[in-house]
Amino acid sequence: MLKGKSLVSINDLSKEEIVHLLDIAEEFSENPRQPVLAGNVVATLFFEPSTRTRLSFESAVNQLGGRVLGFAEASTSSVSKGESLNDTILTVANYVDLIVMRHPIEGAARFASEVSPVPIINAGDGANQHPTQTMLDLFSIRKTQGTLDDLTICMVGDLKYGRTVHSLLMAMSNFRTRFVFIAPPELQLPMEYKLYLQGKGLPYEEFTSLPDHIAGADILYMTRVQRERFSDPLEYEKVKNVYVLHESMLRAAKPTMRVLHPLPRVNEIATDVDASPMAYYFQQARNGVYARMAIMASILGKRG
Amino acid sequence: MLKGKSLVSINDLSKEEIVHLLDIAEEFSENPRQPVLAGNVVATLFFEPSTRTRLSFESAVNQLGGRVLGFAEASTSSVSKGESLNDTILTVANYVDLIVMRHPIEGAARFASEVSPVPIINAGDGANQHPTQTMLDLFSIRKTQGTLDDLTICMVGDLKYGRTVHSLLMAMSNFRTRFVFIAPPELQLPMEYKLYLQGKGLPYEEFTSLPDHIAGADILYMTRVQRERFSDPLEYEKVKNVYVLHESMLRAAKPTMRVLHPLPRVNEIATDVDASPMAYYFQQARNGVYARMAIMASILGKRG
Amino acid sequence: MLKGKSLVSINDLSKEEIVHLLDIAEEFSENPRQPVLAGNVVATLFFEPSTRTRLSFESAVNQLGGRVLGFAEASTSSVSKGESLNDTILTVANYVDLIVMRHPIEGAARFASEVSPVPIINAGDGANQHPTQTMLDLFSIRKTQGTLDDLTICMVGDLKYGRTVHSLLMAMSNFRTRFVFIAPPELQLPMEYKLYLQGKGLPYEEFTSLPDHIAGADILYMTRVQRERFSDPLEYEKVKNVYVLHESMLRAAKPTMRVLHPLPRVNEIATDVDASPMAYYFQQARNGVYARMAIMASILGKRG
Repeated sequence: MLKGKSLVSINDLSKEEIVHLLDIAEEFSENPRQPVLAGNVVATLFFEPSTRTRLSFESAVNQLGGRVLGFAEASTSSVSKGESLNDTILTVANYVDLIVMRHPIEGAARFASEVSPVPIINAGDGANQHPTQTMLDLFSIRKTQGTLDDLTICMVGDLKYGRTVHSLLMAMSNFRTRFVFIAPPELQLPMEYKLYLQGKGLPYEEFTSLPDHIAGADILYMTRVQRERFSDPLEYEKVKNVYVLHESMLRAAKPTMRVLHPLPRVNEIATDVDASPMAYYFQQARNGVYARMAIMASILGKRG
Repeated sequence: MLKGKSLVSINDLSKEEIVHLLDIAEEFSENPRQPVLAGNVVATLFFEPSTRTRLSFESAVNQLGGRVLGFAEASTSSVSKGESLNDTILTVANYVDLIVMRHPIEGAARFASEVSPVPIINAGDGANQHPTQTMLDLFSIRKTQGTLDDLTICMVGDLKYGRTVHSLLMAMSNFRTRFVFIAPPELQLPMEYKLYLQGKGLPYEEFTSLPDHIAGADILYMTRVQRERFSDPLEYEKVKNVYVLHESMLRAAKPTMRVLHPLPRVNEIATDVDASPMAYYFQQARNGVYARMAIMASILGKRG
Repeated sequence: MLKGKSLVSINDLSKEEIVHLLDIAEEFSENPRQPVLAGNVVATLFFEPSTRTRLSFESAVNQLGGRVLGFAEASTSSVSKGESLNDTILTVANYVDLIVMRHPIEGAARFASEVSPVPIINAGDGANQHPTQTMLDLFSIRKTQGTLDDLTICMVGDLKYGRTVHSLLMAMSNFRTRFVFIAPPELQLPMEYKLYLQGKGLPYEEFTSLPDHIAGADILYMTRVQRERFSDPLEYEKVKNVYVLHESMLRAAKPTMRVLHPLPRVNEIATDVDASPMAYYFQQARNGVYARMAIMASILGKRG
């Protein structure tokens, strides 16, 4: 039902569309080497670098038998000759069936989807949206918990600027989620998202301390706390070691709890967590391939 | 008939070869997804970046089932280790069936074609030649006008340094073309090309003002006027807004006239032209894929 | 027998494994376009650029029908976001069946092989190892001499830092080789390798002058003498033109002698050598494709 459509924001998808895409991703996770994109050519236009996301898309296309072309950073693109985004998109649309784009400016993907004759998948536009990340988060949550309904999700770290947190929150609001937000005072969830949850009648709690609130969580969603987000460097020094997950902190957790992280991590998850059965972030990265397979196959009309 | 040969300059092709290649391109435009290059590997060696040209070639190879490898800029190539072009070409020729190369130095492609055991396609060597661009221009002219014979082509902008203008002029001189050249005094067509046309007995006119001369044209070929071409910045400021095409200027044109541009444009075609049925420059970019398919399939012996 | 294993060092391979891989490479050299890697995806992660090696691997994968993704330099990778090598490898391992990596730090490939769930091929880690280079050297020696046994190999140039020299020396020590080392005093073979040969009971001689010692050689293995290896620039100026091979110097050589060079060369082989039937370095580069085909096909279980 996504056939021929662009995917710019997770909010473009209804609850039913999300669930349907997750079912397709589930199918691909069981049988990822199907030539359903044979004969298709996909562009990956990365106006800013994001190796992880780019390689994940390229793996998905290649495993499904499609072909990829594109660029990994803007310096090697026509942008450096002063070309407008409009012209770049209208030109590349002549070469491919689908454009995956990453751009540093918010709204760039929406603009591209409005001028492009071929579908656009937003692979991140500034601090705004990254819907395929959200789809792989949802896939990982459903896969590990057996359901998306009635879960308690504890989100930790930079809740102010964290694009993945905001999109996941909005997508999960379809599924009666209970939210627990844990962030330093400077990086708390913006008011607009709290109002959004209130409008939906969904419960949430806010804390500034990590260890005490893991026990009730089904999902612990960790994010990076980046130095450059702090106006006062001393403030960063104060919190940087507070929002670090250690293996010992998982003892109070439900056995079925899983730790997610959009990656790359820097130090917010200690490496001693990696060996825990609760660590799921590398498997989560693998799920990104399946989620992207589902989205591309749907948009290109190869899956209902 | 190009089988195993290099394509360095449009002048390497006879009129008959040009027409034959255009016929093959026409065939591919009707059916672009044929696995005629299955089993072939093509290198795209871009010693200077040109995203548009590189992606066009890579789309052509991929749509025809071939494989691509290469580099998008010299900084990631062995050139930075002091290797000679001779050695780079002789090495890469071991890896592929065909080398597509872009190089900042005039004559680089000719040199490469003389040392390489595999065919070379010149994708631009400095200000010199870019024959696949000329082929797509010819394809676009024939496609929109139904013929290459007896047309009036109005060339606008930088006629002094414009590589595409010079190559197109020489190729069209096979087809009884009438030329109208419109350029600022500093950027007029070099004398050698005027003498060339005189030698062929072909008529041309020269003007410095754009609007008055559109009415008689079958093709309006716009080019970029680049600041760095002017010795005097004030001279650039004086002309930069004079050689800009606006939609209103098309009212006097023949209904069958089409606007071409090698792209990227900066501001020499106002965006209000884009919606006009006379705007053909993005379709022209698409034609580049078909022209390159024809050239590569011919060189690799997959088309007579 | 390499199925599922990593290849980090040439010393990981027994004499029997080396010979078996060379036999597989021989098969691929006779029939290089076999779709034995169809359905496989290989990552080429080049944390430092090496166009030649990267394109050789990518040609091998593509000729065998597999797919490639990756990056050509670290600046476009997640490394610039502070990600650890551990996390990069664990993430990319989700996308592919095999990782080919080049890294500036010695030991990086060994570390990667210890954490990765998919096999790693070391495509060079600092001054340490580059086993696929050694395999293509061995292939070239056997191909040109008909055997690996009882040969005299004359190694010339930078024998102190030359990674390829050290690996080739250790691999050839399985085959009763006689070694002749020719290097300036500052760049002589390190004592550890001499002790290694003594321990194996293998004869070697050391000289500082090139011309006199070519006559007895079956293989003349030339290497680059790099300015940056010298503490004293005057020392470099003194030797840089001494270790240059000219065509005239080949007159005393055995007719079956062949000149090898890992490439890129700068000026240590004069171009007048290129036309000699003894020049084998470009064919040697081609052999790299076959050697890498053999290694990848074996690791991916497509060849016994």
